[in-house]
Amino acid sequence: MTPTFIGLIAGLLTSIASLPQVVKTWRSRHAHDLSIWQPLLLSFGVALWLIYGMLIGDTPLILANITPLVCNLLLTAMKIKFSGNDNTHNEEAPV
Amino acid sequence: MTPTFIGLIAGLLTSIASLPQVVKTWRSRHAHDLSIWQPLLLSFGVALWLIYGMLIGDTPLILANITPLVCNLLLTAMKIKFSGNDNTHNEEAPV
Repeated sequence: MTPTFIGLIAGLLTSIASLPQVVKTWRSRHAHDLSIWQPLLLSFGVALWLIYGMLIGDTPLILANITPLVCNLLLTAMKIKFSGNDNTHNEEAPV
Repeated sequence: MTPTFIGLIAGLLTSIASLPQVVKTWRSRHAHDLSIWQPLLLSFGVALWLIYGMLIGDTPLILANITPLVCNLLLTAMKIKFSGNDNTHNEEAPV
């Protein structure tokens, strides 16, 4: 295996890694166990990687960060939206 | 802001992004809402980035992936370990 091949597999795996979490959270409508900081920090981080890729004209860097940006923005939004669905977890009575 | 500065901030944010999730999951002992695939795919992905960084001799790439590797291995392990703590979510009676 060449370093380039290893890098491509690495990029593919980290690109698609958040997709299963998006699907699970969307289906379950529950995000209590998720920290909002992970998708929030990743949204900012990968947005900056995207900007960095555009500034230095690095197409693979741009492409590798599009899916994570969309996934982490969706996860941040779902964490906020579904926070009312978590009453079974805390001390409040279900409403 | 220079591209290098933007890249450094991007690297910093994506490096530390999983730390709050590790802390939250460790404290709550609950991982029901977490998809095991996200930390699992990220563990493999950042391990390959680390190997790629070592093969091409890129120190920033190596350093940027150490924290995410540790965090995502911990999250994968906690997802497995704490799966028995989630009886309030499913149809089984709490044991």
